[in-house]
Order: sequence, then structure tokens, then C-alpha cells
Amino acid sequence: MDADMSAWQKAAQAKRQAILQAIPPKWRVQQQNLPVDVTGTYIRGFLNPREIEITEADAVLITTQTASGKWSAVEVTEAFCHRAAIAHQLVNCLHEFFFEDALGVAKELDDHLAATGKPKGPLHGLPVSLKDQFHIKGVDTTMGYVGWIGTFQGQKDDPRARVAESELVRELRDLGAVLFCKTSVPLTLMAGETANNIIGYTWNPHNRQLSSGGSSGGEGALLALRGSPAGFGTDIGGSVRIPAAFNGVFGLRPSAGRMPYEGAANSIDGQNTLLSVIGPMATSVGSLKLLFKAVLSQKPWLYDPLALPLPWRYDIEKETQKLIEASARDPSVLAFGIVHHDGVVRPHPPVKEAMIFIKHILKDKGHKVMDWDPQLCKEGQEIADKAYAMDGGEDLLSHMTLSGEPQPPQSFIGKSKHLSAREVAALNVQKRQYMKKYMDYWNSTSDLKATGKPVDAIICPTAPYAAVIPGKFRHAGYTTFINTLDYTSAVIPITSADKGIHRVESPPQFLSEVDQKVYAEYNAEIYDGAPVGIQLIGRRYEEEKILTLAEYITECIKLYSGEGLVQLAA
Amino acid sequence: MDADMSAWQKAAQAKRQAILQAIPPKWRVQQQNLPVDVTGTYIRGFLNPREIEITEADAVLITTQTASGKWSAVEVTEAFCHRAAIAHQLVNCLHEFFFEDALGVAKELDDHLAATGKPKGPLHGLPVSLKDQFHIKGVDTTMGYVGWIGTFQGQKDDPRARVAESELVRELRDLGAVLFCKTSVPLTLMAGETANNIIGYTWNPHNRQLSSGGSSGGEGALLALRGSPAGFGTDIGGSVRIPAAFNGVFGLRPSAGRMPYEGAANSIDGQNTLLSVIGPMATSVGSLKLLFKAVLSQKPWLYDPLALPLPWRYDIEKETQKLIEASARDPSVLAFGIVHHDGVVRPHPPVKEAMIFIKHILKDKGHKVMDWDPQLCKEGQEIADKAYAMDGGEDLLSHMTLSGEPQPPQSFIGKSKHLSAREVAALNVQKRQYMKKYMDYWNSTSDLKATGKPVDAIICPTAPYAAVIPGKFRHAGYTTFINTLDYTSAVIPITSADKGIHRVESPPQFLSEVDQKVYAEYNAEIYDGAPVGIQLIGRRYEEEKILTLAEYITECIKLYSGEGLVQLAA
Repeated sequence: MDADMSAWQKAAQAKRQAILQAIPPKWRVQQQNLPVDVTGTYIRGFLNPREIEITEADAVLITTQTASGKWSAVEVTEAFCHRAAIAHQLVNCLHEFFFEDALGVAKELDDHLAATGKPKGPLHGLPVSLKDQFHIKGVDTTMGYVGWIGTFQGQKDDPRARVAESELVRELRDLGAVLFCKTSVPLTLMAGETANNIIGYTWNPHNRQLSSGGSSGGEGALLALRGSPAGFGTDIGGSVRIPAAFNGVFGLRPSAGRMPYEGAANSIDGQNTLLSVIGPMATSVGSLKLLFKAVLSQKPWLYDPLALPLPWRYDIEKETQKLIEASARDPSVLAFGIVHHDGVVRPHPPVKEAMIFIKHILKDKGHKVMDWDPQLCKEGQEIADKAYAMDGGEDLLSHMTLSGEPQPPQSFIGKSKHLSAREVAALNVQKRQYMKKYMDYWNSTSDLKATGKPVDAIICPTAPYAAVIPGKFRHAGYTTFINTLDYTSAVIPITSADKGIHRVESPPQFLSEVDQKVYAEYNAEIYDGAPVGIQLIGRRYEEEKILTLAEYITECIKLYSGEGLVQLAA
Repeated sequence: MDADMSAWQKAAQAKRQAILQAIPPKWRVQQQNLPVDVTGTYIRGFLNPREIEITEADAVLITTQTASGKWSAVEVTEAFCHRAAIAHQLVNCLHEFFFEDALGVAKELDDHLAATGKPKGPLHGLPVSLKDQFHIKGVDTTMGYVGWIGTFQGQKDDPRARVAESELVRELRDLGAVLFCKTSVPLTLMAGETANNIIGYTWNPHNRQLSSGGSSGGEGALLALRGSPAGFGTDIGGSVRIPAAFNGVFGLRPSAGRMPYEGAANSIDGQNTLLSVIGPMATSVGSLKLLFKAVLSQKPWLYDPLALPLPWRYDIEKETQKLIEASARDPSVLAFGIVHHDGVVRPHPPVKEAMIFIKHILKDKGHKVMDWDPQLCKEGQEIADKAYAMDGGEDLLSHMTLSGEPQPPQSFIGKSKHLSAREVAALNVQKRQYMKKYMDYWNSTSDLKATGKPVDAIICPTAPYAAVIPGKFRHAGYTTFINTLDYTSAVIPITSADKGIHRVESPPQFLSEVDQKVYAEYNAEIYDGAPVGIQLIGRRYEEEKILTLAEYITECIKLYSGEGLVQLAA
């Protein structure tokens, strides 16, 4: 180590090296002359055909194979561990890697299947990655804070350190999942790019000049490289959706209380104006459904005091499937709202085109489509921003103070006014009134459909940019207003930026200062190859409907874009 | 008016007189030489046999009669209006009385039935009373504040005054209910007795020396007098349950988000650590179920942004019914915890005996019964107290300042520290951890039952006293910890204080200073006849299970107490 380094720098460097050292020498790779795009062909070059076959299967196929014993859990786990180890060396996406523990669990699962003839649960033998907010026995939870290394959430000598497990972890084990790594997050979690003083910057695998998004950026990057078939992130302002969109994978932000947050680390814990939620991320929409249903089968409401007793509602899933079937005969029974922009920042050309593309698909299919009023977005964004900053940044800064580490430029922490309880209450009232306004607007669309029912879902950009240029993530508003509304939102990959198509356009009438800045930062060359994902948004607690509609929309997109989507997700 | 009166006194007096003037002269009564107990025989003396028959029917019977046209909505409405008018003159339980509007609605309902042959909804022709937090067109919502008279929640010249209606009101109208009055509340709502500077004190109809409880005290008193068959109160610390228990009627505190609070007035609006909830109150347990199911049939989650998409779950109701049936063969499949005291204040003799009585019934029936650990109550009470006071009383005081009126002695407003956003967050974390501890304790009882499942419900006093002596409501802890837990709790009338049985006992080892005070304030003579109600408590969102178990427990109590209960509820 460099003698001139400060204590926090030494601690960060040691942790960084420990992550690399957890990778066995046989899986180390040279990191020279990396191409811009390290997905697909490039990463396959490190793997044998069997490993490629396994790791390019989605969670639905994998669990079919492991449940029947066609693939052993050990073989599957080893293949993903190998690919994840390479992925980390290409884009810095891991905080923890514990493949030996994982192989031990996989061995037990194989033994269980051999002994009983039955899989342990619906996720039998499925490797599952987790964002570094979940506590897993045997490894750290740093959440990117240097001051958390070797502690329990920054508390030294706490017996829970490296011992306690989060409720979701307990449930995943019972479901038969194999945990094998924890993925990188930005310091404080409050950022749309993933960077911290331990692992540095998590790059976008599709274009290593770009960001993997945040805050579940490591999760998104790992999935894009197929270093994991499925995982869980968290989302208080877009942290599942932005990295899903930026990495060309699928993600779900459910409404608060469906997935168990109990026993996970968090930023600004106890801020309950706008709750962070856990959501699955995966390489197929079917995998999102598999994971979400599996967790609900564990009845998290009996173990997490904030979880709601809402099991997977098969009746709503079936109703939605029937609606889709009915729409084959009469397409007008399905209706969608399209948000072209949020009234604050216009999307870059690749995102704008994606919205035109999806609108074209839906209209061509014969569905009812209406342009959604953007006027209501801004207030939702402002409420979210006030909620994040209600303690004046005190909690976030306190964790940085533990080690004295500096703030990376991508973080959002600014000193702001610390609200009083009465001001918090006023914000809660404003939020409720905002939700009511939005609800009334949604209800008012019932005259669009012959059925007299309001639109089924709205479709909206996930961000004004495709996977963003580092340091340029200026506007999270496309996702944050959904957190204010506590709506369900699934991200679906739709296309990617193409320098041959998505040229710089002539300046529009700007909506705001940040609109002007964002406009100026589009660069067709640099953005080339950056994925674009769209949000499919439902009302509160409409996960069954939205995931089922997302399956349908994904099929539609495939029909219209040929092999485009397959390339993205591979 | 007295020339020496201040402006607020004049305004209060005018409003008080306006309430009386809303009662037609034919329904005025002399208030001299009132007996202590004005229920039953006494109030019947003002009514004809037909009026008595109608008003002593419960909501279930009434809606059967009105839906079939056997009783007209007009006749039913008029009977209840008459009895409510008398009730108010006996115990001061109304803030608003609008029988002419009600008769107009009832007429429309009769016409509807005549024209279509169908009732308007499941509450067709049912008079429903509402606590004075709900906005109804044509009348004030004062919530007891002099400064709110003629305004919208204290805001002068607001066009919503006497025009806007709360979401619950809209739904009740659609269900066919007939709204006819609003019932009294204590100033600020944060009190276990009902007193304000407009109507004065709301007395207990069973014993006019005692309190009707609070904050839904007017509702409880009106129901006890059968001036209404059913109504809605709100509960943030016991405000449905305390008046239900004190007046010998039934009440339900559901978990947050089941009933629509949208558009109702409230105290400390936006305080969301611990939410106030709406709950039905009625003269039979079946009526609670009828009202609760009826409101859910309106899908409040489509109109109230904080309502959860939980329709009435028939499967859970059926499961519970099956469990009860199975318990006839094997009583040990049903298990209950019994909270004898909360570790802070021991109950007075009538309440203590009620707990022994219910334990005896359940054991005699053969059900599993365990004494519930009281150690966890206190922290839940402390968290609730901190939540109520988080803004240092600023909101409550601001509404009193509007008129300059003084605080009645029964109010709980004390100047306290105004918390910061970070302190609120810390309180939210403490609350969640407390809920988790309680949940773990409940889960740990699974070894009690042969089924391997934890106890089905716990039974707990509603307050340490039967209907309390004015000014002596010192401890709300038996109800507030349930609000912290957000558990479901139904109040069931069980007995009443009897000076012949419930004598002063020798002093116990006191649990606290307030315990000693409460002990000293028991007086067998004064409490004679005061109703006692118990809480039947389930976990979060277990309303279907708890209401169904409450039906069963009510039947058990009837079996064991002969006619005692019937006397109480009449």
C-alpha cells in the first residue's frame, strides 16, 4: 500500500483487493484492450459452451432444469459464479463474492433433490444476486461506505456484523435460491450512477464509456453480462428501473409493502413519506414474475411488520390474460397512456424514438392510445426531492463521516433545510393530495374505452437519456414521480441508441434549464449502443396486472423489432 | 345573549342553540329530573311502539326490512331521527342534525325501490350517523372547534364549506344509506372523554354521572340510546374502541388503509407515523360486518390514494367459520391470548372480573388459552404518545387560536418538544422494530396449538376502567399500543359494573404512579351500571377473521351471561 494514503483510502483499497481476491486465480482475466461492448461475444470468449448454455438461460428455464435434475445446482452455480467473476473484472459490479459458500448450498440442494425427489422450492438451484443492502451471513454489508467495512451498518463491535441475515435472504434460502454475490451501489444510494470509494465506478457493459445507472447499478451490469440470471434491487427514486433500462434488462418497482424490506440496510432509514421498495431485476419478464411470486409464497407479512397480506393474486393475473385474449378480437378493450415527456426535460433522440416506436406498435395493434398529460409530473418530482432531503442530508453525511471519505461527484447530497415534524406532515398532506389528483386524472380516462374503464397502463421513458454519460445524470424525474405515487412500474428493454439513426436534433423550446443542459449533452457517437428501456406503469398494487401486460408488450416489441431485443438482453 | 360573553362564547352558544333548533318542537323534551340511566325504559317512554320496534332493530334486520319494502326508508328514518333528537337532549351527543335532508333522501330511496323493485345498495334505507369529522353537504364540520364554525376546517371563505363531501359520505350515499346527523367529539380529538366548548360534555346514557368516552363519544352515546343503528368513528388511540366499550356497543378499529379517510377532517393531518383510521360502530357485531363489507364493495382504493386494494376476503371469512366449526369437535384448534393487565395500570374490579369471565368462558369451551405477556405493551404506548406530540402540539393549538377558546380539562394537549425530521425517522424505526418484536412474540405462540399455528386472537381490556368518571381518564395505553401495532381490534360489550359484586379491592403492588391514582379512583357506587367492553385483537389486516371470531365470542358471552348483554346493548 501507498504510505501516503489516508486511513480511509487504505481501508477502501484493502476491501477492493479482498473482492478481487475472492475470485479464484483460474477465473482472473487480463483487463487490457477491452472493447467498448463487453457483453455477448466478448464475455462468451471466457466461457465453455456448456457455461454459455447455462448462463444465457433465464430464471424460468433454469429452475425448470434444476427442479427436474437435468441441470445440477452445483453446475449452474459454478457457471454463474465464473461469469460473474469475469463480469466484475470487466465493469466493477460486485461488492461481495462468495462462490464457495454458494457451491456448498448448491451441493445441499442437489442432495435434497436426490434424497427426496423434490425441489426445495420454486427457486431450487437458481443463483440470485443481491444489491449490497441485504445482510448475508459471512460477508460485509458496506453499501459503498468505507466506514461500514467490518461493521454492522457502521456500528463497530456489533455482534450482528457478518452474522445477521435480512428477511428476504431467509426467504430466498427457503425457496431454494443460491446466493453467491452482492452487487455494487453508489455511496448513499441516492444517485443515478454507481460509484463509491471502494470499487470505483460501475461501467455499462454495453458501452464501457457509459454508466450502468443507479442505485442498483451493479445488479443491472451483472445481469446485462449474464453473470446472474436474476436478482433484487431497491427503488426509492428509480434505483431498480434506471439500471434496468440502462443495461437492457427487466426490472419491477412494486408498490410499498409487497416485498419484505425487514432487516435490510438502507439510507435515511425511517423516512416514511416515500418508502424505498425492493424489486426483482432479471433477464426476462417471466423471471420477474417467477421471483415476485416466489417471495410472496413465503407470506412475508408474517415476518415483516410493514409487508402487506397480499399474496400473488391469480384472479387478477387471469383477468388480465383474458383481457389480452379479448383484445385479439377487439383491440380497443386495451388502452394505454403515452408520456412523451415529463414537462421538465425532453428525452434525447433515442428515448424519444423509443416512445414513438411503442406508440406505433400499440396503435398498429389497434389498442386505444392517448397522449398522457405531462403537467402532473413536476409536482411529484418536487415532493420526492423534498422527501429525500428532509433531514438536510444528516443521515447520509453521518455515514461518510465514519471514515472521513469524500463524496463522489455523482452523489446527490446537498445541504438543505432540515424539516420539522410539522413541515414533514405538511409534505405528507401535499403528497396525498398529489396522489389524489393523479388518481382522479387516471379515473377520468374511462371515456376512452368502450368498456367504460380507465386506461390499463401508462408508458413512459425511464430517463431522458439512454445509459448516461458519466457525470451527466441530471434528472431522475421520470422515475421519482412514480415513487411519490407509489405506483407499480415495470421496465422493459425496447431498443438501443444507434448513431446512424438517432442524430442530434435542432434545439426545441426548452422546458427548463436542466432541459437545455440535457439537450446539449446528447452525443450520437458516445451514446451509440446504449440501451433504452421504457416504463409500463400501473396503479398502486397492480403488480399482477402490470407483469402480465409486460409479458404481452414484450412479445409485441419482439414482433416489431425482430431480433433487436434479443441482442440487447444477451 | 349575555353581553359579557366573549366572541368565542357567543359563537359557541349560537351554534349550540342552532343544534337544538334543528330539532322540531314536537320532539323537544323537558330535561328536568332525568334518571341516572336514560337508556331502555326511560327513552322508550318518548316513543310509540312502532318507533321502538324499528329503532331497537339492528342494521342487519333494518336493511332486510327496507330492502324488501316491508319497512319504508322514510318510516325508518323518521323513527331514528326522533330517537336521536331525544338522545341529544338527554346526553349532548350531536353536532349536526338534518332530518329534513334525511327524509328527502329516504323518500328518493322509497321511490327507487318502488320504480325498480331493487334496493339502491346493501345499506338501502339504513340511517347512518357519522362522527363530526366527515364533511356532508349543507352542514358544518366543526370537530368541536369554535373557530371552525361556518368555515372549511377553519379556513374562512373557502368555497368547500358546507359543500364538499368526504369520500366515505359519497360511498355511503351510493350504498343507499341515509345520513341524518353528525356526532360529538372532544376538542382536538385527542381525548378519552368527549367535551368541547360548543356542546359541553357528552354524558354516558347508562350512567349520566359518567363519560361516554372519546373521541367518538357522541357516536357511542347515540348508539347506546338507539338513536342510530350504526355509524362511523375514527381511531388513532382508541377513539372508536373506548366509546364502544363505555357505551356497551360494538366497534371495529381496522388496520390503516381499509376504510377511506380521503376528504375527512382530522387532527394533525399528515402525521403519518401512526395513522388515524375509520371504523364502524353499531349495536350488533353483524352490523359491523355489514357496514365494513358494504364500504369495501365500493372499491375505495380507486378513490382514496391511501386505501389498499383489499376487498372483503370471503375466503378468510369462510376459513374462520370452518375453524369455528372444527372447534366444536376439537376445541383446541382455537387459541387465545389473554392480557390481564398492560404492565402499567391494573384494571378496576369490573374490568378485571370481565377478563376472568372471558377466560373462564374460553377455557370452559375447551379452547387453548394463554396468559399474554404484558411486558411489550408499554413501549407501544410510549411510541404512540411520541407520535401524537411530534409537532409539539402546534397543529392542535393553532385551531384553538382561531377563536381564542380555552382548552377543556379533558384534552391531552401539552407543550412538548417539536421533533425534527431526523427524530421523526428515528421514531419510525423504533415503531417498526417494536412491531417486529410483537410479531415475533405472536409467532412464537405456535407451539400452543396442535395445529402448529400461533394464537388466533388476543383478548384485552379496552381501558382500565368501565365508562370513566369525568376528568379521570388517565390512561389510554390499553388501546394506543394497538394503534402502534396497526392491529385489528373489535370491541365487544361483555358486562357492566355492579356495586354488589365489584367492590374496592385491597391495594396491589402498584405498577406505576398512574396505576396508584387509577386504583384510588375506583368507586363501586359511582361506577354502578357502567358498561365494560373487551378488545378482540387480531394481526394487521385481519378484519375478516376478527369480525367472524367476534360473532362467535359474542354468542359465547350470551350463552354464559344469559340476558346480561342484551340489557346492555338495549
